[in-house]
Amino acid sequence: MTDTDESERRARGRQALREIHGPLGEEVVARLGRIAPDFADHLIDYAFGDVYARPGLDRRSRQIATVAALAALGNAEQQLKWHIRGALNIGISRDEVIEILIQMGVYGGFPAAVRALTAAGELFEELDIAAAEELRQDDA
Amino acid sequence: MTDTDESERRARGRQALREIHGPLGEEVVARLGRIAPDFADHLIDYAFGDVYARPGLDRRSRQIATVAALAALGNAEQQLKWHIRGALNIGISRDEVIEILIQMGVYGGFPAAVRALTAAGELFEELDIAAAEELRQDDA
Amino acid sequence: MTDTDESERRARGRQALREIHGPLGEEVVARLGRIAPDFADHLIDYAFGDVYARPGLDRRSRQIATVAALAALGNAEQQLKWHIRGALNIGISRDEVIEILIQMGVYGGFPAAVRALTAAGELFEELDIAAAEELRQDDA
Amino acid sequence: MTDTDESERRARGRQALREIHGPLGEEVVARLGRIAPDFADHLIDYAFGDVYARPGLDRRSRQIATVAALAALGNAEQQLKWHIRGALNIGISRDEVIEILIQMGVYGGFPAAVRALTAAGELFEELDIAAAEELRQDDA
Amino acid sequence: MTDTDESERRARGRQALREIHGPLGEEVVARLGRIAPDFADHLIDYAFGDVYARPGLDRRSRQIATVAALAALGNAEQQLKWHIRGALNIGISRDEVIEILIQMGVYGGFPAAVRALTAAGELFEELDIAAAEELRQDDA
Amino acid sequence: MTDTDESERRARGRQALREIHGPLGEEVVARLGRIAPDFADHLIDYAFGDVYARPGLDRRSRQIATVAALAALGNAEQQLKWHIRGALNIGISRDEVIEILIQMGVYGGFPAAVRALTAAGELFEELDIAAAEELRQDDA
Repeated sequence: MTDTDESERRARGRQALREIHGPLGEEVVARLGRIAPDFADHLIDYAFGDVYARPGLDRRSRQIATVAALAALGNAEQQLKWHIRGALNIGISRDEVIEILIQMGVYGGFPAAVRALTAAGELFEELDIAAAEELRQDDA
Repeated sequence: MTDTDESERRARGRQALREIHGPLGEEVVARLGRIAPDFADHLIDYAFGDVYARPGLDRRSRQIATVAALAALGNAEQQLKWHIRGALNIGISRDEVIEILIQMGVYGGFPAAVRALTAAGELFEELDIAAAEELRQDDA
Repeated sequence: MTDTDESERRARGRQALREIHGPLGEEVVARLGRIAPDFADHLIDYAFGDVYARPGLDRRSRQIATVAALAALGNAEQQLKWHIRGALNIGISRDEVIEILIQMGVYGGFPAAVRALTAAGELFEELDIAAAEELRQDDA
Repeated sequence: MTDTDESERRARGRQALREIHGPLGEEVVARLGRIAPDFADHLIDYAFGDVYARPGLDRRSRQIATVAALAALGNAEQQLKWHIRGALNIGISRDEVIEILIQMGVYGGFPAAVRALTAAGELFEELDIAAAEELRQDDA
Repeated sequence: MTDTDESERRARGRQALREIHGPLGEEVVARLGRIAPDFADHLIDYAFGDVYARPGLDRRSRQIATVAALAALGNAEQQLKWHIRGALNIGISRDEVIEILIQMGVYGGFPAAVRALTAAGELFEELDIAAAEELRQDDA
Repeated sequence: MTDTDESERRARGRQALREIHGPLGEEVVARLGRIAPDFADHLIDYAFGDVYARPGLDRRSRQIATVAALAALGNAEQQLKWHIRGALNIGISRDEVIEILIQMGVYGGFPAAVRALTAAGELFEELDIAAAEELRQDDA
């Protein structure tokens, strides 16, 4: 990732990444960047800048499409958790996420849905623990 | 499919099927029913009655999830076309469908997106021809 | 899962679940029920009650079909282990399971078979350890 | 395929191929042999001779495993039809085949099951037409 | 595809497309462009310009990787044929293509390899017929 | 694996296994052999002896094909790592491996590429740690 090439695509991609995934987005991309810096750029420039940031479909619909696809493919637990978190960030509710995953049992099979729901359950628990921890620290 | 067992699930499933897929929905189910009548019932009762008709997620979001999943799985051309048609029926625009399929290139790979877009292109053409034909008949 | 709605499907599904998976079956469903109670119901009512409990195919054949499918799909290690355990519960031998998994190398590829056989090996070891532990406790 | 190398594996594989697929088996292998003769040999020697012909699992169970796997993978219509035909050849009934495919809706998703059932329906119709044709010729 | 935006990525992508796929490459992209012009641009700019044209791996290795992946995925017959043709264009022999596809039987399963080899056989025949036709016309 | 049946296929397979995977190859096969000895033989005799050892395609091309396929399939992390290690053993550079995996983002989707690159990053780190450890011991 060359700092000087902060092109329009890069800026657009970064903004979409930030809006959906918050600070965690940059972390995930940075981690990928240590292995394959150019691919980390592709992720921002192409996946987020050229595709996600396109105006023709609202962000909620895009995120639903991604969560559904990852659940149906059934082999991307980490990425599914990351994108469910992104879904929550932009206002999709936990209950709506659960609905999407239940529906994917019809398209990707029950085992894929069970794995997706288990991943969602773990994420929700992690978020609850983090929130409780934060609350505890605020009280202190 | 026993006519007498027009249970609540059946009725709910039939209505969801009709709302999304119109008269074509019944045709597809009837065709399946000639091979495996019980599974045709499962499709209505479970897939449509128990899952699609659930209140926790709006129909537009459900249909986007299905179209995205079928495009990403990349091996279900006929069903993808059927569900894109269903998406159009409930008010998702052709341009929005194209956006979903372009986005699936990121999740299911470019070849899957090319196949999905080709299927969408064929469907749009079929619909245009049918519409033109109907118009021609109305004029006569 | 509403206790009052102990319908015929539910009862039939529960019995099939118990016959194949024993007490572990209820545990797995209960765990899923904490994340998505309705989907846990679907698993019992639809997957077990409407499908597995159907009379047209013997239980041995059904369980072989499931183990084969999960091994060939190659992305469902936990569910494969659960269903191999179910296979053993209903009288399919360890050697027969190994035969099914070897055969899946032809249909799902060698890497999928290696993963499935590794999962089976882990399960067999877990069962041997549990059996030895039980024996030790009986002796005490 | 060198005629002189009629090894034990080859003989065992050919016999398994013949028992399951009848004369059609040789045709399919011959067609493949015009493109990749060595791979046609692998199919006989490895898939049929080394795997299918193994004694540790009965033929019915093996064929059920194969039909289930191909249906769940959902992208192998021709091979699925070929193996359903093989299943019928060794005494698995049409109704049992339908049961396996319905069950695969749970593991590979409803769209995969719909495709598999459609393929089965086509095959059954082809077989009925061929049988009727044969009957007509016998009468003449 | 805006003619004025003939950027460096576009030019690099176009050249890679031309080198591998010849005039057929432009045709395929043009066909896709009638359905989704922006995605046709992505194919040239991203898939060919940003990825295929990268200097770190020779073209032969890149094309082998693509043919192998499409064969193993097992659901992309048209794209596999297109990329096998590209492989032949850049000097990979028919026999080498066959070797790659046979090898994919180990990784994607025998049915995927049979489908890939059948697709290759069809392509080789189409190319032979086209070459014979051309020869006949040259003679006339 | 019977020591006495050191047939030509076995010897050829063992040599290919050793050349690509070094001592680790035997370890992996031995581990598999404790679960399913016959399948461990199939891996050596068929996958390595009958397929990998074939003369019609150079070893570099074969290993690229395998790494590409496993990355695109996206569900075989352990086997991908093993085969990337094999690729390094026969002279494919780390940078070339990264290029293959980036390219697979186009064919198997970005999430599959992210998983593959993460696996490669872990392997490279493990190899660096092992090399540093060895160096430290040589110094002592």
